[in-house]
Amino acid sequence: MDGLRIDIDRLWGRLEALGEIGAVHGANGERGCARLALTDADRDGRDLVLSWMRDLGLQVSIDAVGNVIATRPGTDPNAAAVMTGSHIDTVRTGGRFDGNLGVLAGLEVIETLEQHGISTPHPISVAFFTDEEGARFQPDMLGSLVYVGGMAIEDALDVRAADDGARLGEELQRIGYAGPVPCPAASAPHAYVELHIEQGPVLEDEGITIGVVTGVQGISWTELTIAGQSAHAGTTPMRLRRDPGYVAAAINTGIRAIAVEMGGTQVATVGRCELTPNLVNVVPSTAVMTVDLRNTDEALLRDAEARFRVLCDELAASEGVIITARTLARFEPVEFDTAMVDRVEAAAAALGHSTLRMPSGAGHDAQMLARICPTSMVFVPSVDGLSHNIAEYTAPVDIAAGANVLLHVLLGAALR
Amino acid sequence: MDGLRIDIDRLWGRLEALGEIGAVHGANGERGCARLALTDADRDGRDLVLSWMRDLGLQVSIDAVGNVIATRPGTDPNAAAVMTGSHIDTVRTGGRFDGNLGVLAGLEVIETLEQHGISTPHPISVAFFTDEEGARFQPDMLGSLVYVGGMAIEDALDVRAADDGARLGEELQRIGYAGPVPCPAASAPHAYVELHIEQGPVLEDEGITIGVVTGVQGISWTELTIAGQSAHAGTTPMRLRRDPGYVAAAINTGIRAIAVEMGGTQVATVGRCELTPNLVNVVPSTAVMTVDLRNTDEALLRDAEARFRVLCDELAASEGVIITARTLARFEPVEFDTAMVDRVEAAAAALGHSTLRMPSGAGHDAQMLARICPTSMVFVPSVDGLSHNIAEYTAPVDIAAGANVLLHVLLGAALR
Repeated sequence: MDGLRIDIDRLWGRLEALGEIGAVHGANGERGCARLALTDADRDGRDLVLSWMRDLGLQVSIDAVGNVIATRPGTDPNAAAVMTGSHIDTVRTGGRFDGNLGVLAGLEVIETLEQHGISTPHPISVAFFTDEEGARFQPDMLGSLVYVGGMAIEDALDVRAADDGARLGEELQRIGYAGPVPCPAASAPHAYVELHIEQGPVLEDEGITIGVVTGVQGISWTELTIAGQSAHAGTTPMRLRRDPGYVAAAINTGIRAIAVEMGGTQVATVGRCELTPNLVNVVPSTAVMTVDLRNTDEALLRDAEARFRVLCDELAASEGVIITARTLARFEPVEFDTAMVDRVEAAAAALGHSTLRMPSGAGHDAQMLARICPTSMVFVPSVDGLSHNIAEYTAPVDIAAGANVLLHVLLGAALR
Repeated sequence: MDGLRIDIDRLWGRLEALGEIGAVHGANGERGCARLALTDADRDGRDLVLSWMRDLGLQVSIDAVGNVIATRPGTDPNAAAVMTGSHIDTVRTGGRFDGNLGVLAGLEVIETLEQHGISTPHPISVAFFTDEEGARFQPDMLGSLVYVGGMAIEDALDVRAADDGARLGEELQRIGYAGPVPCPAASAPHAYVELHIEQGPVLEDEGITIGVVTGVQGISWTELTIAGQSAHAGTTPMRLRRDPGYVAAAINTGIRAIAVEMGGTQVATVGRCELTPNLVNVVPSTAVMTVDLRNTDEALLRDAEARFRVLCDELAASEGVIITARTLARFEPVEFDTAMVDRVEAAAAALGHSTLRMPSGAGHDAQMLARICPTSMVFVPSVDGLSHNIAEYTAPVDIAAGANVLLHVLLGAALR
């Protein structure tokens, strides 16, 4: 079975067809996607994927939070399913690969096994989880979080949309995806492996085809409100300034220095910064900014947070401003199962692909599944590192490489 | 005549009465003013000041750009007028002192001379110039600029409002202030001196009552557009970032370092900064920011500009971003007439006030008048350095001190 390969044309055709639902066309030929969770476009996308699942003769279950799981039975009636999957909701300016690839590659693996008449002791399931992006309903990865028991179903159904305030439970009913199957699941999968685009530039930059994902970075998000003294830019000497814009700038350059000095997987980003009143000739009265710190190691992430706090305290004292901090999000790093990670690496190597062990900098449904079963992920390169962008793209040759790694990891796990 | 003093109660009463037109009341008892140039509120303010000018028996002239000049004749029919004045338009969140003080103190000086039956060889004029703030019509100091021949009257009348696009000439007609007197003026004043609040914190910080203004800082305003590469904050290693937000921050801290190192009157401010897309977990694609550099010495201002350009070039190269610079404004420093500056200092000293020679960091009508006659200014302290703010305040004792200095400088010049 080592020579078994997926059909890239069939997989690419499904990616194209699903991408047409909620399609967004850019001025330079970009073809993106806008299918926010539980909108009409999401329903249309779900309906299409469900039709493919039924065409393949799979047993489809829809649970109480709208997660859809399609299963190809195994030969051992007592064996738990080996699961793959991802999500098909997108952000507002999303691409056609983020999430969708993992779901459709799963279906492609099953169709390949069907075509070659290969049966496995363990069932193989393909899932798409509700509201992975969190673009409409917070938190992100909501469906898989409920699936693994990390959030009560009642709480999830009560979440309101950021855009129109709609209740998640009512939106599920409205689009016909409030399913009868209890969530969380009654039993855990045998294993879980997810194929995803990298959403970053590392694989492309290093000329590597397959990212062997070892875990997910821990995340620390802080919002800072810096209160200083608005003043005239011409009449206020430098020594008398209490400039929150300067402090925001010094925090931005300061966390860059911390991240570069710490090295390893440490990253630090100021993505948001707003000055008030934001006029050319006025020293700002306030600045609001966010700081995003990530590391694969919890101790190192705490170290980065501590250095960041010292930086803030020193700047507040030296400039005479008041800094108020609010935690927006805090997640510990996730480490994937060693044996599953090894399996991804071995499968990629057997297929002749270059590999790189790497953490995921973004969140994925896999990090939720890792709470209940041995889990790993397969990354394929993102052109220019772009994602959450209508220019998101991964070449067919890389899609095929990733799907074939998924095929052999799933097959290997399902044959055990 | 050394014992001559203005009546602070009368002056304060006029400041209060004019401040009620377009009054803005703050939550903490602040009483500010919104009388944007050539609005109905500006007309009402003009009408009130004009009625006071006529009550004092002054000869009122209104010129083609709406500048109003009220003159008390001198005893020498061939002598040019000694002029004082300022403006009565305000910014949207203005105070009751900025500009208004200079005009009403001028009227108070004339009323004091009238009361004491003091005549002078030179006439004394009190002017208020149109659109000093530039909050509605650009450029600022428009009325005095046209008055000294720095802008053609046709061009000025054709300027359109930033808010509603109204033509300046039509707004002048609408409020009844398109006057018959030609502008620029047929002849120059004998001298010009203007009383103004400092609009900065220096006098208060140093415990000084009278600022002896030696000139106006040169101004260099630049808008930078920094184009980088939007990227995922989690998946993009620090070494692969082209972060325009980081570059904007490094420019902010860099110009602070330049200003502190240069010392003297050099100031440097980032008042505006906007990131796109401005999201917590996205390395920005672009940043737009402004840099405001000022110095009283043109050579030093050019030095600051050169250092700033080097800073931008170095950061663009090291981070791999593209920086586009656009000049928003550039004015050379203005040096006031030495004899007039000495006269202000001597008058303040004779009245027993502490003095500090200082440049103006803000622009004033006086810098335009300095092009055509010997000019100087008198500053009084601004509480907390606040201006363009409804909390703007100067204590009556300081108002009285400034108006008495104005009285004796005007009198001295008019007696020459």
